[in-house]
Amino acid sequence: MEPNSSSNDNNKMQLQHHSSCLEIATMEVHRVVPPRHKSTIEKLKTRLKETFFPDDPLRQFKGQPLGKKWILAAQYIFPILEWGPNYSFKLFKSDIISGLTIASLAIPQGISYAKLANLPPIVGLYSSFVPPLVYTVLGSSRDLAVGPVSIASLIMGSMLRQEVSPTQNPVLFLQLAFTATFFGGLVQASLGLLRLGFIIDFLSKATLIGFMAGAAIIVSLQQLKSLLGITHFTNQMGLIPVMSSVFHNTKEGTKRPKLFWVSAGAPLVSVILSTLLVFAFKAQHHGISVIGKLQEGLNPPSWNMLKFHGSHLGLVMKTGLITGIISLTEGIAVGRTFAALKNYQVDGNKEMIAIGVMNIVGSSTSCYITTGAFSRSAVNHNAGAKTAVSNVVMSVTVMVTLLFLMPLFQYTPNVVLGAIIVTAVVGLIDVPAAHQIWKIDKFDFLVMLCAFLGVIFISVQEGLAIAVGISIFKILLQITRPKTVMLGNMPGSDIYRDLHHYNEAMRIPGFLILSIEAPINFANTTYLNERILRWIEEYEAEENLNKQSSLRFVILEMSAVSAIDTSGTSFFKDLRKAMEKKGLVLVNPLAEVLEKLQRSDDSGDFKRPDSLYLTVGEAVASLSSTIKAPSANYV
Amino acid sequence: MEPNSSSNDNNKMQLQHHSSCLEIATMEVHRVVPPRHKSTIEKLKTRLKETFFPDDPLRQFKGQPLGKKWILAAQYIFPILEWGPNYSFKLFKSDIISGLTIASLAIPQGISYAKLANLPPIVGLYSSFVPPLVYTVLGSSRDLAVGPVSIASLIMGSMLRQEVSPTQNPVLFLQLAFTATFFGGLVQASLGLLRLGFIIDFLSKATLIGFMAGAAIIVSLQQLKSLLGITHFTNQMGLIPVMSSVFHNTKEGTKRPKLFWVSAGAPLVSVILSTLLVFAFKAQHHGISVIGKLQEGLNPPSWNMLKFHGSHLGLVMKTGLITGIISLTEGIAVGRTFAALKNYQVDGNKEMIAIGVMNIVGSSTSCYITTGAFSRSAVNHNAGAKTAVSNVVMSVTVMVTLLFLMPLFQYTPNVVLGAIIVTAVVGLIDVPAAHQIWKIDKFDFLVMLCAFLGVIFISVQEGLAIAVGISIFKILLQITRPKTVMLGNMPGSDIYRDLHHYNEAMRIPGFLILSIEAPINFANTTYLNERILRWIEEYEAEENLNKQSSLRFVILEMSAVSAIDTSGTSFFKDLRKAMEKKGLVLVNPLAEVLEKLQRSDDSGDFKRPDSLYLTVGEAVASLSSTIKAPSANYV
Repeated sequence: MEPNSSSNDNNKMQLQHHSSCLEIATMEVHRVVPPRHKSTIEKLKTRLKETFFPDDPLRQFKGQPLGKKWILAAQYIFPILEWGPNYSFKLFKSDIISGLTIASLAIPQGISYAKLANLPPIVGLYSSFVPPLVYTVLGSSRDLAVGPVSIASLIMGSMLRQEVSPTQNPVLFLQLAFTATFFGGLVQASLGLLRLGFIIDFLSKATLIGFMAGAAIIVSLQQLKSLLGITHFTNQMGLIPVMSSVFHNTKEGTKRPKLFWVSAGAPLVSVILSTLLVFAFKAQHHGISVIGKLQEGLNPPSWNMLKFHGSHLGLVMKTGLITGIISLTEGIAVGRTFAALKNYQVDGNKEMIAIGVMNIVGSSTSCYITTGAFSRSAVNHNAGAKTAVSNVVMSVTVMVTLLFLMPLFQYTPNVVLGAIIVTAVVGLIDVPAAHQIWKIDKFDFLVMLCAFLGVIFISVQEGLAIAVGISIFKILLQITRPKTVMLGNMPGSDIYRDLHHYNEAMRIPGFLILSIEAPINFANTTYLNERILRWIEEYEAEENLNKQSSLRFVILEMSAVSAIDTSGTSFFKDLRKAMEKKGLVLVNPLAEVLEKLQRSDDSGDFKRPDSLYLTVGEAVASLSSTIKAPSANYV
Repeated sequence: MEPNSSSNDNNKMQLQHHSSCLEIATMEVHRVVPPRHKSTIEKLKTRLKETFFPDDPLRQFKGQPLGKKWILAAQYIFPILEWGPNYSFKLFKSDIISGLTIASLAIPQGISYAKLANLPPIVGLYSSFVPPLVYTVLGSSRDLAVGPVSIASLIMGSMLRQEVSPTQNPVLFLQLAFTATFFGGLVQASLGLLRLGFIIDFLSKATLIGFMAGAAIIVSLQQLKSLLGITHFTNQMGLIPVMSSVFHNTKEGTKRPKLFWVSAGAPLVSVILSTLLVFAFKAQHHGISVIGKLQEGLNPPSWNMLKFHGSHLGLVMKTGLITGIISLTEGIAVGRTFAALKNYQVDGNKEMIAIGVMNIVGSSTSCYITTGAFSRSAVNHNAGAKTAVSNVVMSVTVMVTLLFLMPLFQYTPNVVLGAIIVTAVVGLIDVPAAHQIWKIDKFDFLVMLCAFLGVIFISVQEGLAIAVGISIFKILLQITRPKTVMLGNMPGSDIYRDLHHYNEAMRIPGFLILSIEAPINFANTTYLNERILRWIEEYEAEENLNKQSSLRFVILEMSAVSAIDTSGTSFFKDLRKAMEKKGLVLVNPLAEVLEKLQRSDDSGDFKRPDSLYLTVGEAVASLSSTIKAPSANYV
C-alpha cells in the first residue's frame, strides 16, 4: 500500500456503473439475516467437536447394529483386525522381501543408534524386536518401519548425560533411559487420547528441516570420535566444544585408524566385511576398538528398572517429553507421507496412541525410545511392503539374531558404527528443501536458520524452542497487524477487488471500500482503528486535492473476519462514533461475527438494513441511490 | 456444521442457474493475474512500515520546505509548541477551574496512594508536582490528569516488599522505588521509541476489567488495616492471608476506630473535616493514627538515590517492567478514550515516550511511578478542561501546598486515607462491563475471570500472566482450527454464501464449494487437510445415498486466506495429489498468497486459467460448461 501509487488510482475513477448486472442487483438486494439461534451449550459442543474431533472418528458407528458396533470398536482399537482377515500369501511375499531388507538395515543401525544414545549396543537390537510387534497390532500405517532413530537417540543421550555419566554409572544411566522412554510413551499416548495432537503441528516443516540439519552436523562431528579414533573426546554437545576437541586432538597427531575407508558402502556389508577383517587380522589388538562380547537371548524384562523417584526425576521427565514429542513428530510425519503416496488415511490421534503404547511396553522390555524411522520406512516402501507384516518379518529376523548370531558381532569395529550413523544422518541435511523455502518464504527461512544455528551453537532443546517461539511470534504479528486493502470495482461487473493487485479495478467516488483480512480481537483493534482512520484521512486529503465529491460511505468488507471478541465489538462502536457523518456499512459479516455485533449493539445500528449488505456491489448500488435523492450535486 | 443438518441441504439443490446475471458473467470471465513483481527488499520495507509505522508519522513532513520541516519537527517532539501559540484567556478560564478541581482530588489521593505503595505520603505529593509539568510539554492528550494511580502503586508496593521491608528499611525501600520508577520510564519510552506499542494491546479489555476488579478487592481488604485500626496486619498480598489476618484480629476483639463513618464523602472534605476533628479532640492521643509531621518544601533531587547494582536489581527491574507496562496501559487507554470523545487524535507511540520521559525525570526528582489516572481525567474532562494547562494549574496548586500547607496535614488520620483509597478503587469494579462481556463472548468472560481470581488468589503478576496466556492461547487455537464453510448459491444471483447461515442458499450438483477462513500455515495445514478430505468424503457419501451426479470440482474460496507459508504451499500440492480425478479450483487468492503458490508450483498447476477464478460464480459457470461438453449425463 505505497501512498505514492494512490495518485494513479484517480485515473481509474469511474462516475457510474453501466453493467446490466448491477441493475439486476439493484432490483433485489439480499438481506443479511442473523444466523439461527444456538444456545451456549450447543455452540460449545460444536466448538469442542471441531477442535478435538475434526475427523469425527465415531462417524462409522452411526446407525450400525450393536453387534457390528462391537466389531467396529475392536477394529478401531486394533487396526490389525481390519486388515488381518484379508491377509493373503501374495501380500506376504511382498512383505517378507521388504521385511528382510529393513532388517538388514535395522540390525546395524540399531546397534549404532544405541551407541549414539550412550546405551549398550544390544539395547538397540532389543528395541528393534518388541516395539515393531506392538505397532503391528495397534498401528494404522502400512509402511512405517519401527525402531530406534538417530535424532531421538542423540537427544536422549545428550540430555541424560547432563546429570549421569554413562561410563561411570552405566546401570543408573540405563535406568534413566528406560524411565525417560516410559514418560515419552506416556506423553505420546496422552496426546493421542486427549486429542491434543495439534501440539506437534507447532514444529513446522521449516523448523524441522533446520533442526535435523543442525542435529546431523552435531552427530557427524561427534562421530569423528570413532572415525578418527580419538579417545579423549568431549562429551558435551554443541559445535564449539566438539570442534575445539577435534582441533586439539588433531594437533596432537592422532593417526587415522587403518580401516577408515570402510565407512563408505552399505551398512550390513560394512559390518560383515569389517568384522571379518578385524577377526582375520586380530585388529582388536592393534588399536581398533570393537563392540566386544554381547549377551545372547531375547529382551529381559526391565519394569523393575523404572525409577519414579530420586533426584533425576525432573531431568528424566523433561527428556521423556522432548524425545517423546520429537520422535512422535517423525513417526506421524513418516506415516502421513507414505499414506498420502499410497492414497490411504492414517488417523493421527490413533497413531499417537499406538506409538505411545509401543514405547510404554518397550520401556518395560529393555527397549529405549522408538518410532517410525524415515529412512528405513522409505526403504520398506520401495522394497514393496504391503502391510505392517514387514515389521513382523524384521522383528523375527532380529529375534533370530538375538538368539543365535550375537557372537558374530564381537569383532565388529566401533568405527564402522560411526560411519553408519554419519551416512544415515548426512541424508537428513536437505539442501534442496532449504533452497525451496528460501524461494517461497523468507521468514520461514529465518525460522529454519534459527533452528539450525540454535541446535549447533546452543543446544538441541533451546534451538528448537527458539525456532518454535519465532514461528508463533510470526503468527501473532500477523494477527496484530492485519492487512486492510482498498477495493475497487472491476469494470462491467459488480465484483470488487484489491486496487493494487488488479490494475483495471476502479474507485467509486464518495465510497471508501476496505477489506479487513483477519479476525478482529484485542490484539489488533487499536491498530485497525488507527489504520482505518488513516485510510479515511488519506482519502479525504486526496479528494481535496482533486476537488472530488466528498467521502460519504465507508464500506467494510467483512468476509475475511472469521471471529470477533468483545474488544472487536467495542471497536465497531467506537469507529461508528468517530466517523459521525459518514455512513459505516458492513458487508457480509459471517454468522458468528454478525451475532456478536448485534448482541453488543444496544442502539440497533447494526440491525438497520442500510448498514448491512450481502455484497459490496449491492451496498454500492443501494447507497448510490440514497446519495442521489437528497442532494443532486453528488453525481 | 452438524452433519445431520446436511441432509436438509439436499432439498435445496438446484440443477441449473437461470439468472441472466450469470449469463453475462459466463461471457467475460475475469482472469486472476499475479501481482506486480516486488523485490524482497521492497516487500520487507512495506512489511516493516505497516508493522512499525502504521500511522505514517512523518507524512506531514512530505513536500514541505526545510524551514517548515524544522518547525514541524519541533512541534512533533514538543506538542506544546503546536497548541501553545494559539492559547487564549478563554481556554485558560476553563483550564483553571478544572485544574483546581483535580488538585482537590490529587492532593488527598497522592498522599493515600503513596501510602498504598508503602512510601512516605509526601512522595505522593511530589509525584503530583513534577510529572504533570513534564507531560504538559511532551504529551498530546488534552484531558489526561497526570499523577500517581492506585493499581501501579499497589503493584510497586507489594512487589518491592517481597525483598525489603518498608518499615525496617525505609531508605532502601525508597531507593528501590525510585530506581523501579526509572526502569518503568525507560521501558515506557523504549516501547514508544522502538514503536513496539502494540505490546500493551495484549492486555485485552477483558483482562483489564478482571484484573482491576481483583486488584480493587485486594486493595480494599488491605485497607481494612486502617479502617478497622488493626495493627498486626499481614504484609502479604493475596486474599487468603488477608482474610485470615482479618478473621484472626476480629476474633481477638479489636474495636473499630471511632471515626469509621467518615470514610464516606468526598476526599478533600473528608480530609479537612477529619483533620479538624482530630485536632479539636486531640484524637491522636486516643488510638487514632495520624500522618504526622511532613517536611515542607519542593521535591528534593533523588538521582543520587538510583541504585543500578546490588542484590535487589533483578526485582527492581521486574517491578519497573510490570508497573511501567500496567501504568502505560492505563495512561494510553485514558488518553484514547477522551480523544475519541472529543474527536481528536493521540499518537500512541508519542504518548508512550511522553509518559516514559516523565517517569525518568520523576525518578530523579523524588517521584514514583505516575501516569494518566482514569478517575481524575474523567473529573478533569467533566470540569471542562480544554488543554494540558489544567495539569499546570494542578501542579501549581500542589506546589503551593508543598511550600505552605504541609503543617495542616499533620493531624490527618490515616483511616481517612484508607477510606479514600477504598472509594477510589471500588469504582474500578465494573460489573455492567463484566455482564456485557458475558453476554457477547463467553471466552472473554473466562479470561476476565482468570485475571480476577488469579490476582485475588495467587498474585498480581501471575494473575495477569495467566489471563494474557489464555488470551494468546485462544488466538492460536483459532489459527490451529480455522473454519471451513460450505457455500451455496443465492438463487437468482451469482452470490455464494454459507449454506448453514443463509437457508435460501443452494448447492450446485457436482461442486463442493468451501471457504477457508484463516491464513494457512504450519499450525493448521494438517487440520485443513483432514477437514477438507472429510468434507469430500461426507459429500460423496451423501451423493451415493441420493444417487446424485458425482463430485467433479472442489472450489476453495480463498478471499479470507490472508497469508500462507511454506507449509501452506505444500498443503496445496498434497491436496491436489490426494484428489487426483477431481478438479481443485482456487477462487480469488490474494496477491501475496497467489505469488507464493505460483512460485512453489513447478508443475504450473496454479497458473492454468481453469484452476484460478476471480469469483465463485465465474468458476461455477465456466466449469459447468466443461462438464457438459465431454459427457452429457451430468445434467
